[in-house]
Amino acid sequence: MPITLAQLNHASREDAAQMLDGLYEHSPWIAEQALNERPFQSLAHLKHVMTEVLQHAGRDAQLALIRAHPELAGKAMVSKSLTAESTNEQTKAGLTDCTPEEFAKIQQLNADYNAKFGFPFILAVRGPRGVGFNKQQIIDAFERRLHGHPDFELQECLRNIHRIVEIRLNDKFGVEPTLGHQVWDWQEKLAQHSDPGFAEKGQLTVTYLTDAHRACAQRISHWMKDCGFDEIEIDAVGNVVGRYHPASPGARYLMTGSHYDTVRNGGKYDGRLGIFVPMACVQQLALQQRRLPFGIEVVAFAEEEGQRYKATFLGSGALVGDFKAEWLQQKDADGVTMREAMQHAGLCIDDIAKIRRDPTQYLGFVEVHIEQGPVLNESHLPLGIVTSINGSVRYQCEIVGTASHAGTTPMNRRRDAACALAELALFVEQRAARDGDSVATIGQLNVPNGSINVVPGACLFTLDMRAPTDDQRDAVVRDVLAELSAICERRGVRYTAEETLRAAAAPSAPEWQARWERAVSHLGVPLFKLPSGAGHDAMKLHEIMPQAMLFVRGENAGISHNPLESTTSDDMQLAVDAFTHVLNQLALETA
Amino acid sequence: MPITLAQLNHASREDAAQMLDGLYEHSPWIAEQALNERPFQSLAHLKHVMTEVLQHAGRDAQLALIRAHPELAGKAMVSKSLTAESTNEQTKAGLTDCTPEEFAKIQQLNADYNAKFGFPFILAVRGPRGVGFNKQQIIDAFERRLHGHPDFELQECLRNIHRIVEIRLNDKFGVEPTLGHQVWDWQEKLAQHSDPGFAEKGQLTVTYLTDAHRACAQRISHWMKDCGFDEIEIDAVGNVVGRYHPASPGARYLMTGSHYDTVRNGGKYDGRLGIFVPMACVQQLALQQRRLPFGIEVVAFAEEEGQRYKATFLGSGALVGDFKAEWLQQKDADGVTMREAMQHAGLCIDDIAKIRRDPTQYLGFVEVHIEQGPVLNESHLPLGIVTSINGSVRYQCEIVGTASHAGTTPMNRRRDAACALAELALFVEQRAARDGDSVATIGQLNVPNGSINVVPGACLFTLDMRAPTDDQRDAVVRDVLAELSAICERRGVRYTAEETLRAAAAPSAPEWQARWERAVSHLGVPLFKLPSGAGHDAMKLHEIMPQAMLFVRGENAGISHNPLESTTSDDMQLAVDAFTHVLNQLALETA
Repeated sequence: MPITLAQLNHASREDAAQMLDGLYEHSPWIAEQALNERPFQSLAHLKHVMTEVLQHAGRDAQLALIRAHPELAGKAMVSKSLTAESTNEQTKAGLTDCTPEEFAKIQQLNADYNAKFGFPFILAVRGPRGVGFNKQQIIDAFERRLHGHPDFELQECLRNIHRIVEIRLNDKFGVEPTLGHQVWDWQEKLAQHSDPGFAEKGQLTVTYLTDAHRACAQRISHWMKDCGFDEIEIDAVGNVVGRYHPASPGARYLMTGSHYDTVRNGGKYDGRLGIFVPMACVQQLALQQRRLPFGIEVVAFAEEEGQRYKATFLGSGALVGDFKAEWLQQKDADGVTMREAMQHAGLCIDDIAKIRRDPTQYLGFVEVHIEQGPVLNESHLPLGIVTSINGSVRYQCEIVGTASHAGTTPMNRRRDAACALAELALFVEQRAARDGDSVATIGQLNVPNGSINVVPGACLFTLDMRAPTDDQRDAVVRDVLAELSAICERRGVRYTAEETLRAAAAPSAPEWQARWERAVSHLGVPLFKLPSGAGHDAMKLHEIMPQAMLFVRGENAGISHNPLESTTSDDMQLAVDAFTHVLNQLALETA
Repeated sequence: MPITLAQLNHASREDAAQMLDGLYEHSPWIAEQALNERPFQSLAHLKHVMTEVLQHAGRDAQLALIRAHPELAGKAMVSKSLTAESTNEQTKAGLTDCTPEEFAKIQQLNADYNAKFGFPFILAVRGPRGVGFNKQQIIDAFERRLHGHPDFELQECLRNIHRIVEIRLNDKFGVEPTLGHQVWDWQEKLAQHSDPGFAEKGQLTVTYLTDAHRACAQRISHWMKDCGFDEIEIDAVGNVVGRYHPASPGARYLMTGSHYDTVRNGGKYDGRLGIFVPMACVQQLALQQRRLPFGIEVVAFAEEEGQRYKATFLGSGALVGDFKAEWLQQKDADGVTMREAMQHAGLCIDDIAKIRRDPTQYLGFVEVHIEQGPVLNESHLPLGIVTSINGSVRYQCEIVGTASHAGTTPMNRRRDAACALAELALFVEQRAARDGDSVATIGQLNVPNGSINVVPGACLFTLDMRAPTDDQRDAVVRDVLAELSAICERRGVRYTAEETLRAAAAPSAPEWQARWERAVSHLGVPLFKLPSGAGHDAMKLHEIMPQAMLFVRGENAGISHNPLESTTSDDMQLAVDAFTHVLNQLALETA
């Protein structure tokens, strides 16, 4: 018989502790301390309080907790000394059914991991959907994490413990993140479509107007129909647009959505999460036959990543009248022009100008997106409020020194291009760090035709600098370029720096950001605000209407543009709940 | 009527000044101050004293001198306001015979150069052989030097002025560096042979046992015959060995020589200078029908650079019994094994073991080599005494961090492999500089698959560390690897470092180094000692007999492994003179 939150909040301390028994392996003190924070506003609130307890318990207590956990498929399993819960979880992951080779492999990984870190490897084997990783996924995670930094691994073990506890708690309370699962399943199904050359390797790549891309559009449009959208169309650039009508004709619309194209060998959530979360909300409204005083327009943008063609934000750009005619002449790697690709896909190029939106018809734009960064993951927070989409500037640079013999050129007579770059790299790192929320990166770095015995005569590199406001970004750029110049002057080398991109910051509209904040607070999850370092479709809509974004925590240190990108059904459920809350706020405001 | 050194030394100050009039453009004070150092031991001595005067005159005086020079093919030329000397020199270079396009091009270069540096471009247009650059060479030099650092260009102009003065002085004294020219001409002729794919582009590449390589061996052996060597053979590995017999049979031999193979697109002097300088000496002995109490064995080593096969120092290695049988199985880029190449060249592989030398038959080994570095060039010194061939160690390294989104990963949560490398690069630079005569280089550097918007997850690089003694080198290696480890620990990244080469230092044998020192002092050239940063054939002979090397100044900042590698007939003449002096010392010692 599942417990309810009301029961937990009103029970005696002893009874409440009993209710939470068995969450942490041999460590009832965590749940017990958490009870000091009763009443809990939500299960998410209780979960967060428990992470806080552990976070403040100190390293010794954390290590003791980790060490209290049984090894994965370890001797404990053979001797059946696992807790019932652990056995259940490891069984779900198929770990009770290892071949002798798999068993030996996992034993070896256990031994190596313990030897390296001094504590056992912990993985929430039921995984982000709660249905269990398969054995290969577990072995892969094991091998990957063996390379981790000890500090990171300690925290990653704690995060996995929290995830184990989250699932155990869901079981205790009889709660299933049903809509989170729904979003999860849509993402899994959509990820079955991938471009040639990647699909064969099990990699996800969906670039503009490939067969896989067009299949995605079809899938999304069908699912929108299933959800109960009133109008669904694939527009002139390939965006899939679903409209859920307002209670009264002529009312304005809330626009939302994100992109369904991906980078090469990307993740399943980047973009797509922001399509499926509002679809789940509309699905619920339609099931309830509920109409709001405003319409909802969910746009699955066809192109954001600029992979097949250099036409980043093509999908959202077209809605703000920023489709550039010259893009049509661009050729992909196979020489196919964008015009040909669009004609091949049956898109009506002549109609592109017509899809430009009239902002007076809209309340504003919101976008849900996976964070694509480590901040929420490290902070044990499922959701984050975006304060601004950072402005960014990119440069393509070269430092030219003098190539000379590495053996015969004394140190004080060198014009080493790579050493000049090294000085700049450390400056860039420190300068961005000084702001706290600026970032600056030298992502490409190469000594062309370098030889082991030749002092580098040239060094090619890129600069990517971002900050929440244009002024702050420009100050970073100014300082970095000044330092580059000073370093080159001092070292007697020269440089070129060509600006290749400049994107304005898009601060969230305060009243829209406030709606997300109220929604998140309502869920019992602490408010956490952060800028978005990455660009998003909201940047384009920002040009014509107010916008604000919600971030969802990413697993695996928030990695993105990578197959390891992941989030949980529970976190996505919270995103659906937050979005629903925003809809309800707007319903009240516009009623 | 040429002046003599005795006249200059004994003339009144006024007369002496008159004798040296017109050397420096409108700047008689340099020669006048130099006269304070009378008596001059040699013309080389006088030349050096004048460089010293100018070097100590301060930047203003140097700038004034440079600015007193006419523009190349400039308006001065048209208006005929050049000194007679300048006109003569510019005429020799064909600059009085420019097409309108060439004239306009040079005018533009003059304007650009003057605008950038604030002084006119100065080039000793009669060049290193004294016969004059052609117009294209002049324009190329102009364009190259436009990219120079202002401090470097100021010095380079002064060096060109000294070279102009050197030639004017030779004219005044009626001196021609005849043997220097001889060496120059051999080098030019030998450089006409180049491997396919390079010959067509006018590039010099001679790798082991190609047609060009075999042609070089034939040429050298014919020239040895012309010089009067008694025995000449191409040995089992392709070394060309010339023996000039001693006065009495059974006497020991002095071994000398260097290599005739080249790197790809290399210079004409690297290696070959060390063959032709002693050949010029033997040529003189034979002309004089003079026999020494010892024999002279000049070896043109077939392979030192390890370009076609990874078998560096194959030629000299074979003489010390270090020919590795497994080399024979190595394949070149076209799949031709070394064994096949040797058979194709008619070499008798079975005899390789027989060419190992018995050290008791030799006095020792000396080698003349172009410096391949900037030290002598910057110090205005034609010759340098090598104290040691540096020991070296090389590593192939990788730093592995975590690739993450450049926009979304806060600065304090990054594991940036390139920033870790940057820290190391600056440490490497400072650590080697601290020793004064150690060198350490990160020559190859690459962020594999780097993207402008991705924090570098990995960084591949090489380390090359050298020092005059093995202990000093090992201390550098130890400190660098310790720092690499500390940086990686602190930054939470990991690294691998694989040692790929370890070569012992070869300190010069003191008594042999002393012979070079006496020879150089005798020429009136200041003694300058330096380690050799590059490896040389002398390293191999070092394993079985005493050795010492002499360095000859390189032009163009001492650049090597590059078509710009150059030295002058005058410097090579001094090398021949120094070598002759060593022979004479040995003759006295062994008589």
